[in-house]
Amino acid sequence: MRPKDLIDTQDFSKPEILHIINLGLALKKCIKNGYYPPLLKNKTLGMIFQQSSTRTRVSFETAMEQLGGHAQYLAPGQIQLGGHETMEDTGRVLSRLTDILMARVDAHQTVVDLARCATVPVINGMSDYNHPTQELGDAITMIEHLPDGKHLEECKIVFVGDATQVCASTMMMTTKLGMNFVQFGPKGKQLSKDMQKIGTENCKKHGGSVLITEDEDEALSGADFVYTDVWYGLYNAELSKEERLATFMPKYQVTPQMMKKAAPHVKFLHCLPASRGEEVVDEVLDADYSIAFDQAENRLTAMRAILVYLLSDKIAPEYREDALHHRLTGALSQIIDY
Amino acid sequence: MRPKDLIDTQDFSKPEILHIINLGLALKKCIKNGYYPPLLKNKTLGMIFQQSSTRTRVSFETAMEQLGGHAQYLAPGQIQLGGHETMEDTGRVLSRLTDILMARVDAHQTVVDLARCATVPVINGMSDYNHPTQELGDAITMIEHLPDGKHLEECKIVFVGDATQVCASTMMMTTKLGMNFVQFGPKGKQLSKDMQKIGTENCKKHGGSVLITEDEDEALSGADFVYTDVWYGLYNAELSKEERLATFMPKYQVTPQMMKKAAPHVKFLHCLPASRGEEVVDEVLDADYSIAFDQAENRLTAMRAILVYLLSDKIAPEYREDALHHRLTGALSQIIDY
Amino acid sequence: MRPKDLIDTQDFSKPEILHIINLGLALKKCIKNGYYPPLLKNKTLGMIFQQSSTRTRVSFETAMEQLGGHAQYLAPGQIQLGGHETMEDTGRVLSRLTDILMARVDAHQTVVDLARCATVPVINGMSDYNHPTQELGDAITMIEHLPDGKHLEECKIVFVGDATQVCASTMMMTTKLGMNFVQFGPKGKQLSKDMQKIGTENCKKHGGSVLITEDEDEALSGADFVYTDVWYGLYNAELSKEERLATFMPKYQVTPQMMKKAAPHVKFLHCLPASRGEEVVDEVLDADYSIAFDQAENRLTAMRAILVYLLSDKIAPEYREDALHHRLTGALSQIIDY
Repeated sequence: MRPKDLIDTQDFSKPEILHIINLGLALKKCIKNGYYPPLLKNKTLGMIFQQSSTRTRVSFETAMEQLGGHAQYLAPGQIQLGGHETMEDTGRVLSRLTDILMARVDAHQTVVDLARCATVPVINGMSDYNHPTQELGDAITMIEHLPDGKHLEECKIVFVGDATQVCASTMMMTTKLGMNFVQFGPKGKQLSKDMQKIGTENCKKHGGSVLITEDEDEALSGADFVYTDVWYGLYNAELSKEERLATFMPKYQVTPQMMKKAAPHVKFLHCLPASRGEEVVDEVLDADYSIAFDQAENRLTAMRAILVYLLSDKIAPEYREDALHHRLTGALSQIIDY
Repeated sequence: MRPKDLIDTQDFSKPEILHIINLGLALKKCIKNGYYPPLLKNKTLGMIFQQSSTRTRVSFETAMEQLGGHAQYLAPGQIQLGGHETMEDTGRVLSRLTDILMARVDAHQTVVDLARCATVPVINGMSDYNHPTQELGDAITMIEHLPDGKHLEECKIVFVGDATQVCASTMMMTTKLGMNFVQFGPKGKQLSKDMQKIGTENCKKHGGSVLITEDEDEALSGADFVYTDVWYGLYNAELSKEERLATFMPKYQVTPQMMKKAAPHVKFLHCLPASRGEEVVDEVLDADYSIAFDQAENRLTAMRAILVYLLSDKIAPEYREDALHHRLTGALSQIIDY
Repeated sequence: MRPKDLIDTQDFSKPEILHIINLGLALKKCIKNGYYPPLLKNKTLGMIFQQSSTRTRVSFETAMEQLGGHAQYLAPGQIQLGGHETMEDTGRVLSRLTDILMARVDAHQTVVDLARCATVPVINGMSDYNHPTQELGDAITMIEHLPDGKHLEECKIVFVGDATQVCASTMMMTTKLGMNFVQFGPKGKQLSKDMQKIGTENCKKHGGSVLITEDEDEALSGADFVYTDVWYGLYNAELSKEERLATFMPKYQVTPQMMKKAAPHVKFLHCLPASRGEEVVDEVLDADYSIAFDQAENRLTAMRAILVYLLSDKIAPEYREDALHHRLTGALSQIIDY
């Protein structure tokens, strides 16, 4: 049975992940060619944000509208999760008034609880633990930028710097896809043992490897992808600028010198927003090998796929047919009916 | 002449109320069967909130989108009513830029003034005086859960606790429908004499009765529906937790013991959000006889009907035709053309 | 080559301005007749507000929805322009996730920078320098209310009071259209020399004239249009009520007595919101000759035209065809294909 929700990509099998990725690529191709499949017509997404967000909010809202549906923005403070009303009651009520929910939350348990209480699908729009919609968009971006003649399973990705939820998510997704994952970060800012264990379990099943290291040469050698994120730390323990520079500079700043240690065809990723001059310098983020803005665009690619996937049994027959008979949907036809 | 606005259900005749209820039921049936009548296509609802809201906002926005239109959320503070700009000017301007307005207001007079100044229809999304969209959704819910073989006019409803605007609204709607209404609440927290007079006038016309009592047995005896709401009091005079417990506990808390005093087929209603453990205990709100979450869903049922009713002379001929020729719209055809 | 953005009407030729105006009039006629051309179907507008706004926000959002698209409201504080993330990065990211952007900004340079960094069109929704969407709506309103037998080029418009950004914009638009512009305002509150120069350059090219004066009789004599705005001053230098009354009262308050000095067919304009009893009295704003509320409606007229104009090369062929073959689109057909 398919998962009802997208809370953690670990709940999904590799074929399911690949299916969502392919669905995203097919929908992107359709829309680039001017066909907007009305698969989510009349469907409403409730978007609950406990923190403000640009990329996640805008890409979810655009995705719903492009597919014929609508997204309601419930801003921080406009709706409580577990305050005045219990989470159970909020989840039950919103399940009666919307078709699907997403939540960006402070604490991972909140979105887990919401998914348990809601009868409609719930999407994790980032928590303090992981960021699954980012993971899926990043996987799509890497597939679009694979080194010539190489399969994803043969690629090495290095995450430089802090063990943020994006670092953890990158590790979970890439090891599930059979890639070789490295975190190059200082002790105290490395992925936890529990998190590493998730990665090594993935590797046992899907191939690939996990390495956590402070050795720059070892980390970068032969890397196909270099990824970094801000050094702020998590919400409840944000570092001051002094603290983060003391912890990470200059060793973990991504510079052209560091990039030269990777494979010649290396690509640079960043989930954005970037603190230019901290975790990355302009010459890297603005380089030809930087695919950070393609990643931003693929947030939208991922959102479309996730929404269609989780609502696939609610697509109206006429809109499914519309998509299936459309000239562009050779790929889509197999994918919707997965 | 039909009212332009929905400010108070007292402005509507009983046949008009029944028409809106039937329209809601027909639209709900269509949508449950997968047909979303595009009756409000290209129409825009401006939603003005002086307080934040979950149910009212989400159900209005979903209703507009399901019927092909759009709702704009004007959050608390984003638009003033009667501050920097006069209400007259705001009403006139918004009437030029939207097709219909709703407002959740602190003071009832504000929504009355807005309706007077606006040339487009205005819907009261709750004031300190009443909550007409809640009333209509609740009437629909009771109709869906009528005791076997009983008509609404033969039913007794008991509102337990504080004389909130939901209590007042329940009294106004149920007496207009010819039901027997009881408020079981302590002196000082009972419906005002003016409000009771509205109820007794309704009863003169439509049958039914109004009783305000502190006698639990008298109140509950033979009750078909038991309804409660939070004990907070109105915005400008909110009670502390100590005050409300001292005033209402334990006598006015809805418990299984209290429910046993009602008819065997009794149903429990709550407008939500609930303060579990205060005005109601879990065993009641989560019981099989609780229809509180159906009520929440019927906020949406009511919103659809109210919007179509107030905009019925603006429905484009092609969309009206689309609805009238649709396989599901036997019922709808009579109702739209009312 | 057409401008990508609408930041300043000075970037547009007079034929381009007239084209946008005609497009607005044609779309307004279609919609008044019940045909909503789906020209922007599936397109998303990102609306960035650094200050809250009623008219600009509601008219943009309604315009997008009426034309089949969608507008996302990014409220003050929800998105930063040039804070945590550089403007370049924000512009690049939002260009990947939306089809067009608008921004209401504190400092004009912000919207200039956003347009430079974004690859999608950017619309200035008002800055401390100008208000181009207001200008276009006002030009449309004056065209709809031309004195009998007069051309726009023969008309005189008097802006009374403070040299606000609306005053500057009115001067720029009317001189570009060849009208005779007068600011009747006190020294210290008159349009700057730089701004006047823009107007006189426009006049050299298009006819018309610019006059700044404190002489009421000279200002009002033969005026076809009288326009005023609030006396608050700009955001960073707001005047107290005492200061503004001391500066402008009673001489610059628009009263029936002042209006009598203009042409008999004079019309009164105000961008709203109005501080009734300050810059204008009720007898003027509510007079038959007041076209201030038509101006408000034509914010929507202008927004539709601007959006279609800037996105015209992105209109899907089927929706363009739909519009072109529609019975009402004789005018529209020439205009879309401009």
